[in-house]
Amino acid sequence: MTHNTLGIVAGGGDLPRSVAESARAAGRSVFVLALMGLADDWVKEFPHEVVSLGELGKAFRALKEHGCNEMLLLGRVDRPRFADIKLDAKGVLAAPRVMAAALKGDDALLRSLVDMFENAGHRVVSVTDAAPGLIVREGVLGRVQPTPEQGADVSHGFAVVRAMGALDIGQAAVVCEGLVLAVEAAEGTDAMIKRVINLREVVRGKPGKPRGVLVKAPKPIQDRKTDLPVIGVETVRNVAASYLAGIAVEADGALILDRTRVVQAADAAGIFVMGAARANA
Amino acid sequence: MTHNTLGIVAGGGDLPRSVAESARAAGRSVFVLALMGLADDWVKEFPHEVVSLGELGKAFRALKEHGCNEMLLLGRVDRPRFADIKLDAKGVLAAPRVMAAALKGDDALLRSLVDMFENAGHRVVSVTDAAPGLIVREGVLGRVQPTPEQGADVSHGFAVVRAMGALDIGQAAVVCEGLVLAVEAAEGTDAMIKRVINLREVVRGKPGKPRGVLVKAPKPIQDRKTDLPVIGVETVRNVAASYLAGIAVEADGALILDRTRVVQAADAAGIFVMGAARANA
Repeated sequence: MTHNTLGIVAGGGDLPRSVAESARAAGRSVFVLALMGLADDWVKEFPHEVVSLGELGKAFRALKEHGCNEMLLLGRVDRPRFADIKLDAKGVLAAPRVMAAALKGDDALLRSLVDMFENAGHRVVSVTDAAPGLIVREGVLGRVQPTPEQGADVSHGFAVVRAMGALDIGQAAVVCEGLVLAVEAAEGTDAMIKRVINLREVVRGKPGKPRGVLVKAPKPIQDRKTDLPVIGVETVRNVAASYLAGIAVEADGALILDRTRVVQAADAAGIFVMGAARANA
Repeated sequence: MTHNTLGIVAGGGDLPRSVAESARAAGRSVFVLALMGLADDWVKEFPHEVVSLGELGKAFRALKEHGCNEMLLLGRVDRPRFADIKLDAKGVLAAPRVMAAALKGDDALLRSLVDMFENAGHRVVSVTDAAPGLIVREGVLGRVQPTPEQGADVSHGFAVVRAMGALDIGQAAVVCEGLVLAVEAAEGTDAMIKRVINLREVVRGKPGKPRGVLVKAPKPIQDRKTDLPVIGVETVRNVAASYLAGIAVEADGALILDRTRVVQAADAAGIFVMGAARANA
């Protein structure tokens, strides 16, 4: 057993797996604490244990036993149905605080969980530390460049997303020639992108004439240790299907899964993908 | 021909008709200037003329000829396809300014149109003046009262809608127990309400257990002469179908169409409908 293991508390979605694989590829040993019903079968490729949400004592113990000197909480934890949560002794003690935080929004929930692990002596690191290869840096990633008009939509989109984020609403918006076509709340980014196609054709793109940009940025109040915006191949696919022209994320403030495939898919679809410096974003 | 006629420049939707009927019922003579392809057949019940968007000279003349000492612009003017607009001489002169405004958003477009009519010597009045019976006042309209928890969601909803409105994004949001479920952008309020049913059941209401509130408020930058938020029977129907618990609008800052039927429908569905004072809203 090493004492330089990265512990990953894994919820749903592709992000925990990408971070685990990226860290392992960089030579790090990885232990996965899979949240029951949330993390998929991929955890079997790693040393792992499964815990229920609420088994906080078991989680603390497992991370210690596996020599995790650093840890991360990653992936979707859909707002839990509290009645379904299995609580151990530590979980019972923590529950009122976590429930109160959960009612304030997802970020408050995540921050309160991070606090608990840190108070129990665990060192919670950011994805930037654990898997720097996933971070989007400043610049255009593929062959397609945004036009100046699209650049203006990107700037407006960041203003919108910042305002949304300050109220813990969402991380993403779609802007087309100055008009805000869609804003993300609880439905998630993919559902938001998909509904753009239902808008009147005059305000959006159409086959052969893509228009509008997807913008994603972390919430100002977001704990960057837990929940950075993510883009992947599915994002490019949805953006193309809604005839948008491109994707902009905040440089150093978003993660890209399967970078090579994302760039290939974007180039093939004629979509730009860029990290915009925070000053301009 | 009277010189105390109310001229209504009528776009799409139910609002222009309701205002026209309300003003006529209050003893006012009404002339309708129907925007081609936007206002429906109801205009035939009133003295009216049909003009294309862009026939500004014709519009000015018609309003003068019919002795309209006061006028209103009402109803949806879906962001026009400029190529389809018929321009007369005055329209040609105005087009660059209107197009520039349209690119800044619907409110800028409306404000620029109001400015043009006022500069041509027309007195543009608010719906509050023309049809005060449509304004939602402070208080609960039907038999159902909001709970304190729903009241907290109403307050949070107004904070969200104000932030959205400041960026000219939309007028409406759905909040459920502190979580923002949906925010309106270009899709409109009805589409926004309807998509709440697609969210995971744990964050929303379900049959027999309504949860969450719809909140609507005018944009802070909105010209109250043109585009106040509107609720009607369809709103109540959509709110009920998405298992929301109620509707809150800003008192003196929203219109209600078919008040009697709205209250009946809301009472029957167990939904509260309220005007919240701006200080609390």
